[in-house]
Formats: sequence, C-alpha cells, structure tokens
Amino acid sequence: MDVRDRHLNLAEWNALIEESLADPASEPILNLDPAPADPVYDAVFVGGGAGGRFGAAYMRAMGGRPLILDSWPFLGGSCPHQACVPHHLFSEAAEELDRMRWFSDELFFPKFDPSRAGILEMVRLFLAGRGSAHAFMNWQTKEQLDVEFVLNARATIVDRTTVTAAGRTFRARNLVLGMGARPVRPEIPGLDLPGVFDFVSLVEELDYEPARCVIIGGSKVAMEYGAFFHATGCDTTIVSRSPLMRTKSLHHVDEDLRQYVVGGMRKRGMEILEGAHPVSVNGDGAVRSVTVRLESGEQREIETDFVFLGLGERPNVAQAVAALGVEVGPTGRVVANRRMQTSVPGVYAIGDMIDGPMEMFKARKSGVTAARNIMGEDLEFDFTEFPDFLHTTYEVTWVGLTEAEARATRDDVIVIQMPPYVEGLDTPNLPLPCAEGTMLYAFSKPELSGFQKLVVDGATRKVLGAHHCGYGAKDAFQYLDHLIHRPEGLTIDELGWMNELFLNPEHFVQLSRLRAGKARLTHL
Amino acid sequence: MDVRDRHLNLAEWNALIEESLADPASEPILNLDPAPADPVYDAVFVGGGAGGRFGAAYMRAMGGRPLILDSWPFLGGSCPHQACVPHHLFSEAAEELDRMRWFSDELFFPKFDPSRAGILEMVRLFLAGRGSAHAFMNWQTKEQLDVEFVLNARATIVDRTTVTAAGRTFRARNLVLGMGARPVRPEIPGLDLPGVFDFVSLVEELDYEPARCVIIGGSKVAMEYGAFFHATGCDTTIVSRSPLMRTKSLHHVDEDLRQYVVGGMRKRGMEILEGAHPVSVNGDGAVRSVTVRLESGEQREIETDFVFLGLGERPNVAQAVAALGVEVGPTGRVVANRRMQTSVPGVYAIGDMIDGPMEMFKARKSGVTAARNIMGEDLEFDFTEFPDFLHTTYEVTWVGLTEAEARATRDDVIVIQMPPYVEGLDTPNLPLPCAEGTMLYAFSKPELSGFQKLVVDGATRKVLGAHHCGYGAKDAFQYLDHLIHRPEGLTIDELGWMNELFLNPEHFVQLSRLRAGKARLTHL
Repeated sequence: MDVRDRHLNLAEWNALIEESLADPASEPILNLDPAPADPVYDAVFVGGGAGGRFGAAYMRAMGGRPLILDSWPFLGGSCPHQACVPHHLFSEAAEELDRMRWFSDELFFPKFDPSRAGILEMVRLFLAGRGSAHAFMNWQTKEQLDVEFVLNARATIVDRTTVTAAGRTFRARNLVLGMGARPVRPEIPGLDLPGVFDFVSLVEELDYEPARCVIIGGSKVAMEYGAFFHATGCDTTIVSRSPLMRTKSLHHVDEDLRQYVVGGMRKRGMEILEGAHPVSVNGDGAVRSVTVRLESGEQREIETDFVFLGLGERPNVAQAVAALGVEVGPTGRVVANRRMQTSVPGVYAIGDMIDGPMEMFKARKSGVTAARNIMGEDLEFDFTEFPDFLHTTYEVTWVGLTEAEARATRDDVIVIQMPPYVEGLDTPNLPLPCAEGTMLYAFSKPELSGFQKLVVDGATRKVLGAHHCGYGAKDAFQYLDHLIHRPEGLTIDELGWMNELFLNPEHFVQLSRLRAGKARLTHL
Repeated sequence: MDVRDRHLNLAEWNALIEESLADPASEPILNLDPAPADPVYDAVFVGGGAGGRFGAAYMRAMGGRPLILDSWPFLGGSCPHQACVPHHLFSEAAEELDRMRWFSDELFFPKFDPSRAGILEMVRLFLAGRGSAHAFMNWQTKEQLDVEFVLNARATIVDRTTVTAAGRTFRARNLVLGMGARPVRPEIPGLDLPGVFDFVSLVEELDYEPARCVIIGGSKVAMEYGAFFHATGCDTTIVSRSPLMRTKSLHHVDEDLRQYVVGGMRKRGMEILEGAHPVSVNGDGAVRSVTVRLESGEQREIETDFVFLGLGERPNVAQAVAALGVEVGPTGRVVANRRMQTSVPGVYAIGDMIDGPMEMFKARKSGVTAARNIMGEDLEFDFTEFPDFLHTTYEVTWVGLTEAEARATRDDVIVIQMPPYVEGLDTPNLPLPCAEGTMLYAFSKPELSGFQKLVVDGATRKVLGAHHCGYGAKDAFQYLDHLIHRPEGLTIDELGWMNELFLNPEHFVQLSRLRAGKARLTHL
C-alpha cells in the first residue's frame, strides 16, 4: 500500500497496522518520495526500531535522505511492541499492587482481593492498547519527521550499498544495521514445553493465568517481570547463577542499594535462589516443574505452571554476517567503533547489535551517531558511562561510582545518605527517607520508605555517584548523569546551591547543603 | 532540660518532644556548649524552621558559632509539623484515591468504597507519625550538625545583639530572623465558627469527618488541599477571586498547562468558582453554609459543614518591628536585600518573613545566605527565578518561561510537547504522553495521561521553559532549573544528547533529539 500521498490519521494508521499484523499476506506499506526516481539514499536503515527511527529522523533533520526498512508494519521496534512499554505498564501495576497488598484493609485501602489481580489481564490490557503507540510513531515519522520508509516487508541485504524489500531494490551510500536482538534461550531440556515464556512470547502468546512462576536467569528482565508476576499473586522463584544485580551486565551497583532492593523482593515473599543452575524444565504437554541445582549442590524440583526466561538478549547478526561479512566480537555482537562503523566501510551497526547496554539511550543515540557521521560530522558516542535503572515494585536508579568503587581509588570518600550514614542509630520506625512517592509508607511502614545514597570525593568535592530506591527520581538521574559526567563534574557546593522542590523523591540537594559549608567534608 | 551531655536516641527524642508539646508547662530543652561561659554567638537564629536550621548548620559547618532559639520543642519549623509534610502525605493519598476511583471495579482495582476514604483518618495518620521527623531533626542537628539550640522556649528580642529565652540572655554579633508566617484570615464574618479551618488548624483541630467542603481562596494550598478533600469523597467547591494558577503569587504558569490542570480538577467533579468573592460564613454553633458573590454578581449560598481557608500566608513580623524597628515593605514582609540584610545593621531576615515565594528552597537558602554573609562571604541569593510545583491529584511542575512569555519577546519560539503541537490531530484515545507514572492511564483512560511542554528559543536553541503535569518529573525540574538558568543555559542540542532513562515521566530528552538535527528548528 502506497501511503505517500495519504495523510492517515491515527485511527487509520492503527487499523492498517492491526490488519497488517493479523494477515501474514498483507502488503508492504510504502512511504517513498517518487522524485527523483531510483535514488541513492544517504543511508538505508535496516530496522526501524529505536535506533533506526531516531537515526533516520536526525539524518533527515540535517537535510539528508534516509530510508527505513522494517519487517513490522510499524516503526519503533520492539520497545512499544514487546519490551519497554509493556515492562513499564507491568511495573506500574506491580507498584500499585504492592501498595494495595501492604495496605490491605488499612486506611482507605480495601482488603486486597488476590483473585482480581492477574498477569493475563495486564497482558491483554497492553495488547489492546499497543497499537496506539505504533500508529503515533508511524504518523509522527511520516508527517512530522518527513522520513521515507517501507514497512511490513522483510529486507534482504544484497551488498553494502544494496538492499531489497517489497520486491524493490534500494541503493544507498551507507547501510545502518539496527536489526535488534532476541531473548536468549539457554541449553536446557524442556524449553519447548507450553508454559515456557520470555518477554516476547509473554505478550504474544500467554493464554492462561499462571499460578506459580519460576524465572530462569537473574537479568533486569528477570527482576522486573518477576516482581510484577509476584505482585499479581503468582508466587515467584528466581533461579539465578549470580547474585541479583551483581551480574556483569550491570555496572556501578552499590552494595547497600542492592541489599535494600533484593531484600525488599524477599520481604515481599519472592524466593531468590542465587548460585543456582537450572537443570531441566519438566512436563508432559505443559510445564509441570523445573529442576534446579542449588548452590549447595543438591537438586530441587520446583513445581510450576509457568517458566519465564530472563537471561538477557542476543543480537540478530546472522544476515549481516552472511551478506556483508561484518566482524562479530567475542560477545556475539557486531564490532563497531565509537562512530558506529563496523569492519565493513560504509556499514554501521547500532542498538542491540553492538556491545554495551541494551538500553534505549544507546539505541537511539547510536542511530543518531551513525547518521551524523554519515552526514559528515566527526562525532563519537561513548557509552561506557551512563545512568541505569530497573524496577522491582520500586523504581531503582543509579549513576556513577558505588561507595566501594570510590573507596578503591580514593582515601577520602564521603557518603551522604538516607537513612543516615551512622552506625547504631535506632532506625526502627524511622520514616526516612521521608520522600515524595513513599509518604504513605513513611507514615505507616517506615521500613518500606526507600534508600538513597550520594557518594562524594572529599578531596575534589565532586559527586562521584548517586543511588536511589523509591519512586520519582528516575527522571532526575538523566540530568544528574549529565552533570556528574560533564568535564567539570558537579561539586557538592553546586548541588547544595540548587533550588530543591521539597518534599522531593531524593534529598541530594538539601543533604549536600547541610555539609557543603565544611572545608573538610564529613558523612551525613 | 539540659540535653548537652545526653545523646538521646530517636525514640527518646520523640518521647521528649511529645511530652513537651502535650504540657504547656514543660521545660525548655537546652543544648548549649558550656565553654566558654557567656559567649557572644556569631548569630542567634530566632526561629529554628527550615531557614534557621539550615542557616545555623551552614554557619557551624564553616566554623562559626550559631545558636537557634525556637518556641517549639523541635527543629524544622512548620514544614514537618503542619505544612509540607502533611501536604505531601495528603497529596500522595489524593493521587492514590483518584486512581482507585477512576479504576473502580476495573483491572485489579476493587469497586471503590467511598466510605473507607476520609480526611480525618489521614490527619490522624499524619499526627501519629510527625513526631518521628521532629525527633530526627533534633537528633541530626545536635549529633551530626553540632548546632547549639534552646527549644520549647519563646524568644524575646531585646535589641539587635540580645535575645532572651528560657530565662537566659543570649548575646550575638548578628540576629537572623526566621519567625515564619501564619495563614491569612480574610475579613469576612463567620470565620470563628467551628468548622472553619486553615492548613494549621486542620491538622491540629479536626475532630469530625467533613461531608462537604468550601474552600475560600485560590492559592496552591487551596488547590492541593482541595484536590485531597475531593478525592476522599468530600465534595469540594473552590471560591477564588482569580482564575486558579493565574494569581500573582505564581509566576510562569503556561496557559496550556493551566488548562490541563484546572480542567482535570473539574473533570473529577470539583466545582471551581472563579471571579467569586466570599461574602460570609454562616452558621449557628457550627458552619452551615458560605455565601458567595459570583462573577455574575448574583449571590449564592453553598451549604457546607467544612470551610477551608486557602488565601496564602502572612509573615510574623510584629516582634521584629516592635523590638528592632526593621523596615517592612508594602507586602507586609520584612525588607531584605540579596544578602538577607534588613534595614537594621546586623539583623538578617529569612524565609517567609521576606518577599518572594514561601517555598522551602528560599527558606533554606536564605538562611544559608545570611550565615555565609555573616561569616564573611560576599554572597547574594537571587530568587527571582526558580522552579515551582503544586499538586492536584497530579504532580504539576514548571520552570522558566511559558510559551506566551517567550512569544512576547521573541519571534522564533519553538514548542515541543506531548500531546504533539499539531492542530487537527485526532487525539481521542491517543495515549500520549505515554509516560512513566501514567502508564495505567495511557492504556485505559488516555485523556488522563498528562501533559508536557518544552519552550525553546529557535534563534539561540536554548531551552526557555519546561512544563509538566503527570507524576515523577518534579525531582528532575530541580536540575532543569539549574541547567536552564546557568549563564550558558541549556540548548536543545545538549538536552537531546543526554542519556534518557526510558520510559521517562517527561520526554524532553528524546523529543529534543528528534528536532536537534535541524539547523532551523520546528515544533514537534
């Protein structure tokens, strides 16, 4: 279907996308500028996910001519379809369910009715609504960002300047590969049994309400989805080789933060088996149990009707390797430099296909970096340092160094935190942090009211790291990341002179101010 | 009671404070360093609220010797006792109640039971817990901040170097006046009837569950408390002379934001009478009704059992004027320069006693400014520009210029917002913003999912203002304020290169990035 001269509204886009998804024989969706004929694009973006869409939009904004090809009938990739958007919807539900459970029959909260809560209903809520985000991104990309695209058509890379899709051949001076990743499936028996899911198949295929969950893996996805499952009332066991949040895919996890977060999961009744290995998934026609080798060496069989894989993702590199011979590194991902250039001249790789965190900021900014370099800018994107987050029933955010990392290289490390950095303080019933987002907890169940820590270099007075568990600070960590990592850094004096919006989710501004007067800083 | 050599733990502080509050004849609480005898303090802080406590702590951190005097048995002032802390507890309850009402009998939410929700229960929850914050601040000020104080003793200013309290005379080189403010009571008949409250008496005196509320005034407090009362099921009418959020005490309120926020209050069933004047509060032994002159000129009598005054606050200046002769300006507040110096040499005034927003950042930083100037620094505190917020059942935040303010002085103003800045887009059922904190709304009741707007100077590419209604962005606005108002400002290019933590409450980073490639910016 050629939509070039049609200005579909959001409802029309929604209908077209839904029809295309429902019908395997549906037509490609073409938004191609007819003039000039047979163009050579500045870049063909193979994959219109976060990286491809942002990269193409930036290139177009600069005056370049990009083309996006995607096999899905919508732009935006897995995020709105299967990944970040459902995750955030589920995590918001988890937060709410968690609060309703803790306050069951207290204050204005009714007695919690576990029969109302379920995974399946939330999956269906997501499925009923996800088309709107797809429709918006197609609309925006065409009408506001003026980017050409061919959707609902699988691209075939012919060579480094040629790609075919929808029966057409497209030529480009450069290729930008943004072909995404898929969930890792471990090498254990039984994973083909009905009842084994990952975050993709969960939203695409779940058709029953699980009663009991075993999660294989200890990734962010394992923690986030596990916390959600458990909050709905589906008793959840996480089987993880590494201690949670101590996996090599997460950097800068402060130990106190980790203990608060993982302790909070256990406090809510989740079973977390660390140092444990899955041996087999067992069943007959459907999942019945998971056999696990515990840290002690003994085996345990855990009955379950629902297994969820949370082992991370693996990039989709096969076509790029076969067609172009791009170099792949020891992690299985395409090797790219800081300009996103691969081993093949004129071929760029972005997003989850390359090393680094499989996070939105990297996907989008790597796409933009490729675009800007193609358009002649000399720009490097260094994503060795970045802020990070995950959800349990809390929002957990961190940036910069942990206390231990700071102490490893510095003599004079100052910690400012809530609850305070004091041994022997009688903290039972101490409603601290008394913070926006945890006020009800602070006044009713103080031990649930969160944790926050600022790590400061006593010599330079610069903030080295910030760590938070609570609600409502995630947005701020984007700006803290910028401030901490700019060349001049952020001193406790500058931070302490900012204008707080009290009562705030994290108290870093005002706590810094209470110490900033000191020439020689001390803990708080 | 001399606590100098005692290291009370939090429970002991809590008990001492509660006993002192309960007994009008209770002793002063003295934390005074005995050596040297008869000291001359660098400053006596008259009032240990936010400004006095932070100012004294900063002075002590710098090596000075401050003394705090306060008539309450705790430090921290009205914030934890009657103001910001209960406001935030109530606003969090309002958010939660609002969600439970919208989702009544949908998803995992049970049918909303209005008989469970009430104002009185939340007031009692606050009262039962507020002592913990008091205890902590006393503990922290003594043990961590090393500040001397005399509490539970009314201070009498003798002259500009002498204050008496607890039967003792204290001498100081400087006085810092932080004596706070009290709610304004308008000149209308009937305000002495039982059933008329302000935010102070609400927490101190409420002893019944109101059924119907009339709020006199259109201040932030009126909106915040009104939204809470209404969310509990107490039908609320706001009687305001000015349109809400268009009062002179609030700056930089964008009209689109205002309409979303006030429209949202009306959508929830609140009655908002703008251009209306209260004529009288009527009753016989208790409030029975309020007579109001409407904008049309006609009078209306509104039956109610609960009247709440939300007309702002007036500073406590009488003693300072009588004892010291400090100059008071046309607003009734003490005149102070940017060093917080009053008309009387050596006398400083801080917090709500001086002009400017009666907000925490100003209280604390004005105290610190006084301290630093006293200690010899040459420091000015300019609070003409600052970020601001209020709550309804939403969190509403803003900083910098509105769209209209920007357009008034610039030809090239670019707006980036969600929902998009497009006329004629079919926005029904558009789940945008699809933002952290409003995910459940986005997928179920899209029109409730918030509003966000960034105002950019097209010529300089600098961010001029940011405006948000939703949840979870307030913390970020502290840092946005810093970035926007630093001398070099914040360009859309810098903002668009930050590392977003997607899916975020506000989408300013990624939306900026979608436009930043353009040499000539356009709306989004």
